[in-house]
Amino acid sequence: MQENYVDKNFSSLISDLQKLIQQPSVSAKNVGLEECSRLIVQMMRKSGIRAEILYVKKGVPPAIYGEVTSRQNPDKTLLFYNHYDVQPEEPVELWDDKPFSGKIKGNKIFGRGSADDKGELITRIKAVESFLKTTGDVPCNIKFFIEGEEEIGSVHIEDYLKKYKEKLSCDAVIWEFGYVDEQDRPIISLGMKGLLYVELSKTESIRDAHSSLAVIIENPAWRLVGALKTLRDDDGRILIKDWYKEVDKFTQEDIKIIASEPFDEHSFKKEYGITKFVGNKKGIAIKKALVGEPTCNIAGFASGYDGPGAKTVLPSKALVKIDFRLVPKMNPKKQLLRLKNHLRQNGFGDIQVTLIHGEAAARTAISDPFVGAVKKAADASFGRSILSVSSAGTGPMFSFVKFLRSPCIAIGSTYIFSRIHSPNEFARIDLLKKTTKCMCKIIRNFAS
Amino acid sequence: MQENYVDKNFSSLISDLQKLIQQPSVSAKNVGLEECSRLIVQMMRKSGIRAEILYVKKGVPPAIYGEVTSRQNPDKTLLFYNHYDVQPEEPVELWDDKPFSGKIKGNKIFGRGSADDKGELITRIKAVESFLKTTGDVPCNIKFFIEGEEEIGSVHIEDYLKKYKEKLSCDAVIWEFGYVDEQDRPIISLGMKGLLYVELSKTESIRDAHSSLAVIIENPAWRLVGALKTLRDDDGRILIKDWYKEVDKFTQEDIKIIASEPFDEHSFKKEYGITKFVGNKKGIAIKKALVGEPTCNIAGFASGYDGPGAKTVLPSKALVKIDFRLVPKMNPKKQLLRLKNHLRQNGFGDIQVTLIHGEAAARTAISDPFVGAVKKAADASFGRSILSVSSAGTGPMFSFVKFLRSPCIAIGSTYIFSRIHSPNEFARIDLLKKTTKCMCKIIRNFAS
Repeated sequence: MQENYVDKNFSSLISDLQKLIQQPSVSAKNVGLEECSRLIVQMMRKSGIRAEILYVKKGVPPAIYGEVTSRQNPDKTLLFYNHYDVQPEEPVELWDDKPFSGKIKGNKIFGRGSADDKGELITRIKAVESFLKTTGDVPCNIKFFIEGEEEIGSVHIEDYLKKYKEKLSCDAVIWEFGYVDEQDRPIISLGMKGLLYVELSKTESIRDAHSSLAVIIENPAWRLVGALKTLRDDDGRILIKDWYKEVDKFTQEDIKIIASEPFDEHSFKKEYGITKFVGNKKGIAIKKALVGEPTCNIAGFASGYDGPGAKTVLPSKALVKIDFRLVPKMNPKKQLLRLKNHLRQNGFGDIQVTLIHGEAAARTAISDPFVGAVKKAADASFGRSILSVSSAGTGPMFSFVKFLRSPCIAIGSTYIFSRIHSPNEFARIDLLKKTTKCMCKIIRNFAS
Repeated sequence: MQENYVDKNFSSLISDLQKLIQQPSVSAKNVGLEECSRLIVQMMRKSGIRAEILYVKKGVPPAIYGEVTSRQNPDKTLLFYNHYDVQPEEPVELWDDKPFSGKIKGNKIFGRGSADDKGELITRIKAVESFLKTTGDVPCNIKFFIEGEEEIGSVHIEDYLKKYKEKLSCDAVIWEFGYVDEQDRPIISLGMKGLLYVELSKTESIRDAHSSLAVIIENPAWRLVGALKTLRDDDGRILIKDWYKEVDKFTQEDIKIIASEPFDEHSFKKEYGITKFVGNKKGIAIKKALVGEPTCNIAGFASGYDGPGAKTVLPSKALVKIDFRLVPKMNPKKQLLRLKNHLRQNGFGDIQVTLIHGEAAARTAISDPFVGAVKKAADASFGRSILSVSSAGTGPMFSFVKFLRSPCIAIGSTYIFSRIHSPNEFARIDLLKKTTKCMCKIIRNFAS
């Protein structure tokens, strides 16, 4: 019934999405954020959703709150988490049309934000609208939380979740993104890794010196090389004491699901031009690593001269940026202390460690009934779907778990090659329709 | 007698030096090189020296050759090696006067090139002039070789030395620079270290990846860290097989001289803001290292992101620049092969090694009679002097030894804090006069 409504009124979903795309909202440049949030409030109200703008403090982009109370089932609440901000449109010259065009060509609608995340948002608003317009009610309470800083690291998400904890309270969360693979299978992702991002730096002297003095002045780049070598072995295993202490082994159920996740080794190698994987991993080991292996990655190393030819300089300082991906139960603060202790105990106490970002991992248990509700809806809408224990990436999922104490699942309409963050970003129109109907089913399954 | 001539005609030395400074000759920018070389030829001819311009090939700055044949002693030849090019004058805003002013204030004459190397050149031309104007002859044959690329690495010096080998043949060389310390003691330097400058690079994949993929894609920065750690221990000792094979121990005589060289540990530490030396060196160990220890220095390390904050990137490539200082008998080509073998044997054969620059060390034996001749002249002119077995720096001295087979000694008029390569470079007028007289004595001592 709601699915029929979605079919009949699909042209309004597309024209609303075009309006959203045509309103730039680039958080990195602080462009159009107020305007876009007001536009979304209008749109939600038109669909029958009570909507308001939330603030935490001056200078922070506003968030949007939306709500529909269910008369038939007021004790169960589903929250949709989305974001209205987009990545910068640059490099503009590589777009075939204007970056905020909303232009339709065949099965695609183009523009920055078309997929990430305005396309996802509109399917959710329209799914809720379909209930209100056909039955005048919703199967359970519905809430929306739409932030404006996702593309710059969700800097104030905890401020919002803390301040509006009561308002946002819910029993389950549908996450902001969700991918659909090359075979049109939606990927239902149950978790995200955490992140500990630090800078290691060493300043040895007050000025760069002529490198002939390297016989007597210490080189800070050598210090960092020495320290780094103690952190990780060649197969990627982290050598810091107790680093893996809280890490749980995979359950039998996890392994079953991981084994069933598709991963095309050959295409992946071709895509990146590589011939083997870290530690010579093969088969399920690759998939296990993506889902549940902590990493220690050198994201940047800078010291001295990197121009053409020879400059005989002894640099006065050196800097390394490291990102550690974390898995559930690893506490970023505790891991940071372990890193600092490790450096001290290995004679590198002179190296300065600066915390840039810390975020814990989160994962919804496969046994949670919410997983079944979503999986059933996805299978019904797409014919089949893929369960994923965790994405290899990081997002603020743990903050939601911490403040709202609800399971979170990522599922959506974003075709995996839809060029998000890149020129010519698009959303696939067929997937927008299928996903809107899938959201209707998720709401029904969750409510019942 | 020549010394009296120098005193009486000293104002012409100063005015000629001003003319030289006022003619910019910046090799890095290819500015004024032809003009400056013509000016020097004129000046040399005015002093009674036969002078001509030498070329090797189109686009290479000219060099200047000068010659006076001795009637009384035509079998012995002393060659002065100098350069007429200067460092760029930038940053211009930090100069108190215009960079090419030649302005005199008290005991100082200011301007780019005043000390390095036009001040040195003029003392040598005027010393030769003093013989010609007082006796109509010189005590031995005199030659000049004045290049125009010293400040950009003497790129074509071997082309000149090879092409004009006969013309430049000599029995001894006075090197282009020479320092005078804070206590007005000239430093007589008998050698220079060699240099092997290489790039180590590793390209892992065809594009940067999201760092969540660090569980499976190798990180090229980790590869370089691993390779680097095998090259050198924490005390600076190089771990490459046979690296020190040809290195001679210091002789007793070397050690005596090294022990007598002054080195103010306290001032040096203060100058660079450091608290200890590499490998905790103290006393004579520091001086021995500066004179004769090979080094392995990271001159640059670049990979991934080095901007503010966090970027979760897995870089596709990493680059390290290393300069190895070499001591006598170490052959840059052979050492390069040893480095490559070492990497291969340690499992790092995938790392690309690119040679940027190779230059052997050179050292004149303390027992060479030319050392005594120079030392005697310096002591007589300055009251005392310091013998130095080798500078810690590198210059094309080995090329001279290879093609001309002559001992080389660096001695000159450059006050150690005269800001060469920096704004407000100056030459001390008293030292210009003393050094000109010292050159007269060197010529006499060498000839007799």
